[in-house]
Amino acid sequence: MNYPPVTIELPAWVQPLIAAKGTFFPSLEARMALVIELAARNVAEKTGGPFGAAVFSAQGQLIAPGVNLVTAANCSILHAEMMALALAQKVLGRFDLSDNGKLSYDLAASTEPCAMCFGAIPWSGVNRLLCGARDADARAIGFDEGAKLPDWQAALRARGITVIRDLMRPEAIATLQAYAAADGSIY
Amino acid sequence: MNYPPVTIELPAWVQPLIAAKGTFFPSLEARMALVIELAARNVAEKTGGPFGAAVFSAQGQLIAPGVNLVTAANCSILHAEMMALALAQKVLGRFDLSDNGKLSYDLAASTEPCAMCFGAIPWSGVNRLLCGARDADARAIGFDEGAKLPDWQAALRARGITVIRDLMRPEAIATLQAYAAADGSIY
Repeated sequence: MNYPPVTIELPAWVQPLIAAKGTFFPSLEARMALVIELAARNVAEKTGGPFGAAVFSAQGQLIAPGVNLVTAANCSILHAEMMALALAQKVLGRFDLSDNGKLSYDLAASTEPCAMCFGAIPWSGVNRLLCGARDADARAIGFDEGAKLPDWQAALRARGITVIRDLMRPEAIATLQAYAAADGSIY
Repeated sequence: MNYPPVTIELPAWVQPLIAAKGTFFPSLEARMALVIELAARNVAEKTGGPFGAAVFSAQGQLIAPGVNLVTAANCSILHAEMMALALAQKVLGRFDLSDNGKLSYDLAASTEPCAMCFGAIPWSGVNRLLCGARDADARAIGFDEGAKLPDWQAALRARGITVIRDLMRPEAIATLQAYAAADGSIY
């Protein structure tokens, strides 16, 4: 038995989109607008579910984007946040983005993280999480966010990770609802 | 900016090891012995931390192994369980291993899952988790298991996933302790 490698790769439409926008996103709203657009385009391009994410430096330099590729890649771990973290670590050449606490990075997510992505965040070396839609908004259209700690934000804060919620929440919710209205696959 | 793909690939020593052992592991102890050996070999080969995992069919057919490659691949999501799940999904060509509840698979892990891997299990379609060392055993040598629900096993059971603990726990602990004694990197 040979075990084939699994390749984590962005859909072809992502790089032209980033090339058109540039890679500097100074405000938190600009960072959130990008990940919401990634979520919406991922649905429009039929490459996956309505979730986008990205890693940015504290100053706003885009390090790596991610989109949900669970169905397209047949891989349940490929949530948008996981992709963005793995690609950012590849770009920077280290598994601890913070380089032992010396540097600061944001993970922006169009929807608050599920139980898996929540658990992945402290291992990645990001020290701030920016969220658009709430987990309740994802549940409202039928997505399961998993068994999370009741106060998952406090658990992240206790590990030195700041959580900023509700950035452009109405726009983030609209993307989730457009997906549900178009009868998208819920998994 | 081009975003390079991330390739999830087993170290070169894994396939010969599996070829020598065969792919049928009828007893739960045989499944656990394999993942403990993967953990120990991963340390001996200097390809990563002291953690092994594998997905098996209910009957005991090995679908895919995994080892911790966080340091070797510079990727914080590459815990042994995540690798085994991603590779098994690639081998079987579906992101839901159970194929909508029709089939049963085990995930065996040499140590109980961290918060990330706990969250990943329900998305994968396995319906039984076999564990060797306890999370407390990993903490005892300095590994952080993350912020888990106090009764994470009940949370899995509530989702139809059986948890069997303490399979060959002394042998699993011995592998963790050998790593710590050899002054292995804790991350």
